[in-house]
Amino acid sequence: MSHAATNQAATFESLCQTFRDAAKLSTTADTLEWDERTGMPRGGAEYRAEQVAYLRGLVHDMQTSPRVGEQLQTLQDWDAAKDPHSDIGATLKWLASDYHRQCKLPSELVQRTASCSVRGQGVWDAARKADDYKLFQPVLNEMLALKRETGERLQTESQTVYEALLDEFEPGAKAAALTKTFADLRADLVELIREISDSPRQVDTSLITQTFDKASQQKFSHLIAEAIGFDFERGRLDETSHPFCTTLGPSDCRILTRYESNFLPTSIFGTLHEAGHGLYEQGMREDWFGLPPGSYASLGIHESQSRLWENLVGRTLAFWEHFTPTLKEHFPTTLGDATVEQLHRCFNAVQPSLIRVEADEATYNLHIIVRFELEQALIGGDLSTDDLPVAWSDAYEEVIGVRPPSAADGVLQDVHWSAGLIGYFPTYTLGNLAAAQLYDAAKDELGDLDTMVRRGEFSPLHQWLKKHVHQQGRTRTADELITEATGQPLSAAPLIRSLRNRYGQVYDLND
Amino acid sequence: MSHAATNQAATFESLCQTFRDAAKLSTTADTLEWDERTGMPRGGAEYRAEQVAYLRGLVHDMQTSPRVGEQLQTLQDWDAAKDPHSDIGATLKWLASDYHRQCKLPSELVQRTASCSVRGQGVWDAARKADDYKLFQPVLNEMLALKRETGERLQTESQTVYEALLDEFEPGAKAAALTKTFADLRADLVELIREISDSPRQVDTSLITQTFDKASQQKFSHLIAEAIGFDFERGRLDETSHPFCTTLGPSDCRILTRYESNFLPTSIFGTLHEAGHGLYEQGMREDWFGLPPGSYASLGIHESQSRLWENLVGRTLAFWEHFTPTLKEHFPTTLGDATVEQLHRCFNAVQPSLIRVEADEATYNLHIIVRFELEQALIGGDLSTDDLPVAWSDAYEEVIGVRPPSAADGVLQDVHWSAGLIGYFPTYTLGNLAAAQLYDAAKDELGDLDTMVRRGEFSPLHQWLKKHVHQQGRTRTADELITEATGQPLSAAPLIRSLRNRYGQVYDLND
Repeated sequence: MSHAATNQAATFESLCQTFRDAAKLSTTADTLEWDERTGMPRGGAEYRAEQVAYLRGLVHDMQTSPRVGEQLQTLQDWDAAKDPHSDIGATLKWLASDYHRQCKLPSELVQRTASCSVRGQGVWDAARKADDYKLFQPVLNEMLALKRETGERLQTESQTVYEALLDEFEPGAKAAALTKTFADLRADLVELIREISDSPRQVDTSLITQTFDKASQQKFSHLIAEAIGFDFERGRLDETSHPFCTTLGPSDCRILTRYESNFLPTSIFGTLHEAGHGLYEQGMREDWFGLPPGSYASLGIHESQSRLWENLVGRTLAFWEHFTPTLKEHFPTTLGDATVEQLHRCFNAVQPSLIRVEADEATYNLHIIVRFELEQALIGGDLSTDDLPVAWSDAYEEVIGVRPPSAADGVLQDVHWSAGLIGYFPTYTLGNLAAAQLYDAAKDELGDLDTMVRRGEFSPLHQWLKKHVHQQGRTRTADELITEATGQPLSAAPLIRSLRNRYGQVYDLND
Repeated sequence: MSHAATNQAATFESLCQTFRDAAKLSTTADTLEWDERTGMPRGGAEYRAEQVAYLRGLVHDMQTSPRVGEQLQTLQDWDAAKDPHSDIGATLKWLASDYHRQCKLPSELVQRTASCSVRGQGVWDAARKADDYKLFQPVLNEMLALKRETGERLQTESQTVYEALLDEFEPGAKAAALTKTFADLRADLVELIREISDSPRQVDTSLITQTFDKASQQKFSHLIAEAIGFDFERGRLDETSHPFCTTLGPSDCRILTRYESNFLPTSIFGTLHEAGHGLYEQGMREDWFGLPPGSYASLGIHESQSRLWENLVGRTLAFWEHFTPTLKEHFPTTLGDATVEQLHRCFNAVQPSLIRVEADEATYNLHIIVRFELEQALIGGDLSTDDLPVAWSDAYEEVIGVRPPSAADGVLQDVHWSAGLIGYFPTYTLGNLAAAQLYDAAKDELGDLDTMVRRGEFSPLHQWLKKHVHQQGRTRTADELITEATGQPLSAAPLIRSLRNRYGQVYDLND
């Protein structure tokens, strides 16, 4: 190595150490938030918010220090970083882009947004409870203005303001391409749902709406998470009101689920979903923890891992051929007489409904499409918040076929916009698409996945995902990762095929 | 205010803000440790240690920055700080003494001690399991050398090396005074224990060694903690293997207890003990959180609050007159026929034994006296670690009347020395003494506490402690606090009176 290269290697190591140290603090803040959402006493809320804000501030200061800027500058022409898909190259590419992103945002804008987000979520919560959109509108206006300013400051020449916002969650995503993909998807989904609702064979879900003991639900949830490969030596499963997955260290991943006494799928599919996120987190390379090669590629890719296990694996006949006997052991009185087919049908019931988080797999993406169109119009100035509630209801009626009777069950149902998460919703659908496409590619390579699942052999699929997704970290963009792993750019076709196949069984649809 | 005073007020505010910010980080580290001891997955240990060390390092840097030194210098002659018992005066007094203490210790010594402590606890654990003192001896030698160097660097002209170490836990404590107090206590305890063992009336504890359902123990523990005043809006009770109390914010105090299926007192008195610590933490002034007026006076005073509720309240006949019916409701099959007197006797059984943490209230302080004498001899160089095991066994035989059959049940039973906690043990006995003396003073002022306790009225005592102890924070030394609250300097007499009174009932002793 030349003298310059030796220096650059040392500079790189020092830069990485800063981000590793910052990760120690940000995972610490995540731990505080995990605790807040699992059992912190109510009195602790105010101080907890101060602690988290202080830690996040320290992290921000570390990541945007002038020294980091100088080090990135020094490393700009480093030979070892030339390949953006190498670990070093990807690290420098993302650290530089994050750094420049942060530097474009004045800290008073960041602080105003953070403060509006905390306040906004409180106002949203109150407005939803009071079913009063007017209460929410002023803070929504404020947040939209802040996010518009943020997008304008961040946008590159080739980006719209909305794309600049989207970029934070799904780096490199293009609104035009998304619009096209979502339009294809929408047409196919609307047709599929029409066929399902026209089918003479409908699903009776009374089996899964009985009363289910929480302790048994907890045991079964633990069992299926472990079966698909979630490592309880390096993670745990807890209860919360809004399920999530959070990573508190390279070998400490926490997944959280919810138990409904009268609706069994909530805990089962909630657990599979979060465990899917957990497998991704546990499958990353520990030696790159806190740096891009040890991070997720995008939120869409993260969601693909949860949806794959929840839906592509968890809702199949093969999965329930394997798990029905165990499930019946856990609920002998309520499910003692249930058959595999009955359970499989119950877990794949389709019913157009008002609330996204309760939606079935077929209609779910339509909920996202509504939001994707509305939030673009809001940010672009094509839709005023005065007209939003009616636009929302019209869109639901047109796209999903149901009209919300109230703001609480309509435009006020999601926390995202109040929290400043604009450009986030599309990642849910991107995840669904990627899940189906990755599953198909795995099947092409591994052979008869159904038979493996029927035998409870989840490891081949898990290892395939680990190799093609988890261990890649952020050395690829989402698009690159999908194309390399599946041989195709992302498309709606695999998801539609998968849904047609599964719902075909359940609703006796014609091919 | 003069211009200089205005400046000094601003400097003081800035200094306090630094320590408030440091408290945000140190309570964050405490949260990480709480999580580690309540359910962190095993895989998380290594990274968790890195996180905690990093946070503790940041705190140390903040508290010992040159700017803090300059600010303390600027405020040295500030009129508002003249009275060391005022909030401002006490703040500056303790911050300055901590600062100078820290500055006397080179950071390489601090780091070597921290590293030896982590390693030492691991070695201790292995040595105890293998019942092999020789395994432990080298790291004990290393730790003693480090602590001796620490003490030598810290000691003032009027202090011995041991006193300099003691000072960290019990500021201002004098070894000579302790030796005198402990000698008085020892003589009285030995006599009391002789009378108890000679008594024809012995205690049958079979009632409390049956099998007790954990869920019922948890409910009863929660109930008694709440009854004595622990605020569950501002705290919670969890399970752990080594009970403790930790404060994660001004309104977030966590207490932890242990449930033994075959020994009921473990959870009951463990909970009362930790809840007593918790009442102290919850009773402090929130606006001084993270600063001396919002901190505990000393470890001895902290222990006095736990021991007071555990023993002076929790082991009385009056307490069980109140709680026996509720206890029987929780354990109808095992305790359905138990009487108040039977339970009271069981909870006050005395039996000289080998293990400190399992010792009854009468013999407990003798275990401490053994450690106090041995650790002084070790630090002073009067006892070599070669001779320690025999010295330990001889002391147990002489003081408590039992000889350990093994190192594991003898000299290897406590983690403290391996962790560098030398000078810590005496605070346990100081707490016992202070508890009895404070209880007497409260009774003098409040009247018939027994009747209140019998009625389940714990608030008068709680409020008295809040006023005389909790809200004082660290504006008084332990000695000053006890003298002001009770009208007397600390002595062994109240504890001995209290034990004689209670054991007199249980063992029919003559007055």
